[in-house]
Amino acid sequence: MKNQIKDSDILQALNWRYAVKSFDSNKIVSDQDIKTIIESGRLAPSSVGMEPWKFILVKDQDLRKKLREVGYDQTKITDASHLVVIAQRTDANNLPNELIARVAKTQNKAEEQLSGLKGMAEGAIANFTDKVALNGWIKAQTYIALGIMIETAALLGVDTCPMEGFDYKKVNEILGLEKENLAVSVMLAVGYRGDDPFADLPKTRRDYSEIVKVM
Amino acid sequence: MKNQIKDSDILQALNWRYAVKSFDSNKIVSDQDIKTIIESGRLAPSSVGMEPWKFILVKDQDLRKKLREVGYDQTKITDASHLVVIAQRTDANNLPNELIARVAKTQNKAEEQLSGLKGMAEGAIANFTDKVALNGWIKAQTYIALGIMIETAALLGVDTCPMEGFDYKKVNEILGLEKENLAVSVMLAVGYRGDDPFADLPKTRRDYSEIVKVM
Repeated sequence: MKNQIKDSDILQALNWRYAVKSFDSNKIVSDQDIKTIIESGRLAPSSVGMEPWKFILVKDQDLRKKLREVGYDQTKITDASHLVVIAQRTDANNLPNELIARVAKTQNKAEEQLSGLKGMAEGAIANFTDKVALNGWIKAQTYIALGIMIETAALLGVDTCPMEGFDYKKVNEILGLEKENLAVSVMLAVGYRGDDPFADLPKTRRDYSEIVKVM
Repeated sequence: MKNQIKDSDILQALNWRYAVKSFDSNKIVSDQDIKTIIESGRLAPSSVGMEPWKFILVKDQDLRKKLREVGYDQTKITDASHLVVIAQRTDANNLPNELIARVAKTQNKAEEQLSGLKGMAEGAIANFTDKVALNGWIKAQTYIALGIMIETAALLGVDTCPMEGFDYKKVNEILGLEKENLAVSVMLAVGYRGDDPFADLPKTRRDYSEIVKVM
């Protein structure tokens, strides 16, 4: 049996969270917390368990400067305590075999016993005749991990800002992603809010009654 | 200042979580917990705050039976305590104006003062010349909310199963989504694990060192 977290504690954290515009560059997230945030992403679910992603923790300040140059000069890219680049796999056809190898090892089974699972994974990919749609679906998988990392950070009292505003091709080049069958999906700045006027704005959300329909 | 949840409690919940294959149809999630799970989705971040989604809580058993018929007869669709259908907006061009109206109201500003934000929202959408890519990006936004709902449920000790295996067109028809400028993105079954042999399998994940790269 597991410990249960209280509803009110979760909602308090999610209401406290906002997309930080300006981080305090002097405040550093602990190794334990950054590891927990990334581990949360590793534990995220994905379609048929294919985990079509990689999380790149960019520590090198020169690299972060280069990323900022192709990211509309957003200070978050260099000033947040940590920068996580979430990359998505571009070689979807390799994912089913990798999955089967993992599951066979974990469950101590022969790969032949996992033909049903393999068929599901291959079928999920074969569904997409359109490469753009396939990439959109893989991108969506990485956003599950993104959401979970953001929530975990908020629960720990750590701030984040998810970022889509950058030159995707140039980020791939700077990080050498193409040769690893990867492409940038989204970035996540992680740290602590600085002197940020946005911190005090009331949260804007659609009303519950607008967003939720009971049928 | 907010309460902080312990790293170990978060990871315990995420390790306890798995995609439930068989729910106990007699165990019902409390109104408070289901509301917290959906509220977590409502509080999820989205690109420029456009919230391009709607969460449909399907309670009607006839509707759930119809969805199961177009969902490979998966028992989860009818047997889980609750079924949440996450729909994505198909009318992206309406999102910026809706955003500006919301922000103006929340921050008590004239819409004219928000032209910068409006430009960002319009620009994010105009980025996509390809309708398929646009829909993939909106789908990805909804998967942030999906990930956050799944984590919140796990923290509360509530089981889930995200589901992509169904006939998307027929689900849109059954729920009448098209006329609301919506299309199904993903489903989330919410409840409590039943007599499920999958519950005891060790979790399969890529190793931390495979999934995480430090640069």
